[in-house]
Amino acid sequence: MATFFSVVSGEIKMPFRMMSSTFCKFLSPIRSRTSFARSTVRVSTAGPGGINPTSLGVAPYKNRSMLPSFSLFSRTCSTQSTTAYFAPPTLKRKEALLDDYGFKLNDVKMDDIKVDIDNKQLLVSWTNGKTQIYPFVWLRDNCRCSECFHPEALNRLIQLHQIDVDVVAKSVDISPNGKTLTIHWEGDGHQSQFPSNWLLLYRFEDSHDDRLLNPKVQFWGSDVDFRRFDFGDLLADDGALYDWLTELVTLGIAVVKDAPRELGQLQKLAARVAFIRPFVYGLTCHVKSPNPNPLHSAYTTVPMAMHTDIAYYMREAGIVMLHCIQEAEGTDGESLISDGFKVALDLKRADPEAFQLLSKYQFEFFDTGREDHGEFHTHARHKTIKLDDRGEIEAVAFSDHSRDAMLRVPVNKVLPIYRALSKFYDMLLASENCLKYKLKAGEIMTLNNQRALHGRSAFQGSRHLEVGYMEWDEVNSRIRVLAKNLQNQP
Amino acid sequence: MATFFSVVSGEIKMPFRMMSSTFCKFLSPIRSRTSFARSTVRVSTAGPGGINPTSLGVAPYKNRSMLPSFSLFSRTCSTQSTTAYFAPPTLKRKEALLDDYGFKLNDVKMDDIKVDIDNKQLLVSWTNGKTQIYPFVWLRDNCRCSECFHPEALNRLIQLHQIDVDVVAKSVDISPNGKTLTIHWEGDGHQSQFPSNWLLLYRFEDSHDDRLLNPKVQFWGSDVDFRRFDFGDLLADDGALYDWLTELVTLGIAVVKDAPRELGQLQKLAARVAFIRPFVYGLTCHVKSPNPNPLHSAYTTVPMAMHTDIAYYMREAGIVMLHCIQEAEGTDGESLISDGFKVALDLKRADPEAFQLLSKYQFEFFDTGREDHGEFHTHARHKTIKLDDRGEIEAVAFSDHSRDAMLRVPVNKVLPIYRALSKFYDMLLASENCLKYKLKAGEIMTLNNQRALHGRSAFQGSRHLEVGYMEWDEVNSRIRVLAKNLQNQP
Repeated sequence: MATFFSVVSGEIKMPFRMMSSTFCKFLSPIRSRTSFARSTVRVSTAGPGGINPTSLGVAPYKNRSMLPSFSLFSRTCSTQSTTAYFAPPTLKRKEALLDDYGFKLNDVKMDDIKVDIDNKQLLVSWTNGKTQIYPFVWLRDNCRCSECFHPEALNRLIQLHQIDVDVVAKSVDISPNGKTLTIHWEGDGHQSQFPSNWLLLYRFEDSHDDRLLNPKVQFWGSDVDFRRFDFGDLLADDGALYDWLTELVTLGIAVVKDAPRELGQLQKLAARVAFIRPFVYGLTCHVKSPNPNPLHSAYTTVPMAMHTDIAYYMREAGIVMLHCIQEAEGTDGESLISDGFKVALDLKRADPEAFQLLSKYQFEFFDTGREDHGEFHTHARHKTIKLDDRGEIEAVAFSDHSRDAMLRVPVNKVLPIYRALSKFYDMLLASENCLKYKLKAGEIMTLNNQRALHGRSAFQGSRHLEVGYMEWDEVNSRIRVLAKNLQNQP
Repeated sequence: MATFFSVVSGEIKMPFRMMSSTFCKFLSPIRSRTSFARSTVRVSTAGPGGINPTSLGVAPYKNRSMLPSFSLFSRTCSTQSTTAYFAPPTLKRKEALLDDYGFKLNDVKMDDIKVDIDNKQLLVSWTNGKTQIYPFVWLRDNCRCSECFHPEALNRLIQLHQIDVDVVAKSVDISPNGKTLTIHWEGDGHQSQFPSNWLLLYRFEDSHDDRLLNPKVQFWGSDVDFRRFDFGDLLADDGALYDWLTELVTLGIAVVKDAPRELGQLQKLAARVAFIRPFVYGLTCHVKSPNPNPLHSAYTTVPMAMHTDIAYYMREAGIVMLHCIQEAEGTDGESLISDGFKVALDLKRADPEAFQLLSKYQFEFFDTGREDHGEFHTHARHKTIKLDDRGEIEAVAFSDHSRDAMLRVPVNKVLPIYRALSKFYDMLLASENCLKYKLKAGEIMTLNNQRALHGRSAFQGSRHLEVGYMEWDEVNSRIRVLAKNLQNQP
């Protein structure tokens, strides 16, 4: 009989040589080598040999019967290793989510289960008296045994067309301690196990939302007390990096101070997250004014109306970073910045019709020229205020200087749309909303480019900014990783 | 009196030294130095000096009265130079668009104009008997004189809050030849001129759509006769490049053949467009199977269900390029590819409820690991079938192997959603839809990743792909530029 390993009561039995960084991935919420050292999980050797975990999810999929060790593994895996197959919220986040439901993480217990054959679903009652429903097809689809889910790649192996959507359980059991649900399936005799706390975290009704995809934000006006982060700290300290990125999620504005007054600093900052998002201008654009051959009005000394950057992209930038290398003399050339979410909500209250028009119709934007990647001609369209399926504001996008004349709306809507836009603009510029801030050399203004609008006043003489972008996908990824590694922040 | 230049009958009078590449930008549709040589526009010198066009849009904005040359320019600019301030469709495209309306490009004439003061709009009757309405605020907003629009940067200079949305004309005139509309505005005495063909192109009712943002596509099944492009041709020939990119717009599938069988070729191909889109895996991912420590099930030898790539990004990739460096032995490891748009429309006809469910509810996707940019944890949610505001399919997004268990839907929708997804999947795999193609070493499969789903069958032995992405924003930009430069293709 092949050697196997099992997980019981937080103790993992396996050959020590398997404790590679890849195998550590199994252990949740501690999945990287670094984090593993902080864990309390004990590891010991089971038997003289060991199977290679890499092959776990692979071979049995192709020929289950040839590898009895596999079935053994999948049948003996306990709740803890099953949980480990997910990419879960961080430990603290899990604790908070279950606390809301009246449970401690390690205290979630099933009290009773009922099978509802007619509706092909399972009803789970918890010891706190509440109940949740789990459709059988969802349970079968999310079996985390190593035949169905690659334990190392953390990818689903079973394909949708291999699942009977009308599947029901042959038998269902809960363990005596109420912490493990075991299902024997009709048909192929497959068996799945689910830990109680995982079931509760993944409940259907009133399930928790992803806090980075639907973040709670703080609105602000011209008196915003934004935070200032030291450039050197951000390069060296994960805690500072986490604070800066979460500040961009929450407030959408922060200043990085004491950066070297030379090109190339944005790339260093972005490398701490992932990378600069390239665009047709290259990795960054160099807003050096006055420019004798301005490709864009940003390269002149004229005032710039409030805007979000690169609206001429369908995929507008997530985060804009404006690095001031040389500031304009005197007080000229101030940055003007407003919280587009706050102003849009104000508009909704003050003039619901205007809000509705700006969240329904699209303006078009374009840009042309020749830069690092050659000649370009970008063209995009955006609603000024973008709502998600719940009707909540998820982005603002507008740029007067790159707005095209083409307006594909019913002609009788044109005047109302201009009225609405004009009202929104006046509110963005109102003294209670519009922050005026003169960037100093060595400072990097960082903004949520899908929320904060920025502009500038006119100036005389020279001024030099380097401007670059990052995307929320990579920023959110970095936040999740940092949260996990930094003492399991929520 | 300051020197000025004017445009009459296609002849531009200006100091020859101003014929820099920047000034050539004024001339539409010929805007780059290269294209200029092909144009029929004649250039001659007007007077001994010349104003610097760079300053045109800048200085007068700040102090209009100081630069009479400016007013002269803006008042003497003819229809042709006014047209030139836009980033227009290519010449052939313009011709086609106006031909639809019953006009030749240089033959669009106004017959009559009527002012509708009550509704603050202008009615323009054409010599073909049709009429279009133009709201005054839109006309004022889109004045292309150099005070309102930077003639070099092609950016709007006038800011929205500087425009009276209730503006009306003091007087309106059409030129004797019916080709120029001149408006004197109430209030500041500003004057705007509009060429007839521009007005018709930018009409409100029944205006032309952007053919790249709403492309006409050709649906296909497993018998698709996709085109094959030579790698060397794409690097050397703009015509081949244009054909390949437009094929990706239209059909969404093409093969590039005879690429070197080594890493780094995708970067070369992407550099002809703009650049590779980086992601958490780096610039590309190296799908080398079998991998002893698979970060992802793609790195194994198991079958891969039909999917769009990187569904764990909110910003899913536009175009996926799969470069086969080493093919699997024998016939194993075939690529399976289906047209997601065609199958989604088939589903809509066969089962409207299933279509509705897949275009309403979102699945969630995640990926974790450690790659070029360090540890990552991406998480995104997508509707399987995404509809635009018109109810038309604009994207499909699905990936079973990276699908999360979290399903934030009403629990009574779960079984119907699985049924719908299962049906969609069965249709994707049906023999009439699913193309089976064994990639050979040196071939690059290129797909619209928001339309075509791809997977692979299992294989034995080794296989090596390099996979990289491009974005539609940059691809569409390149197509527009190529269309302009290549004999004005539509």
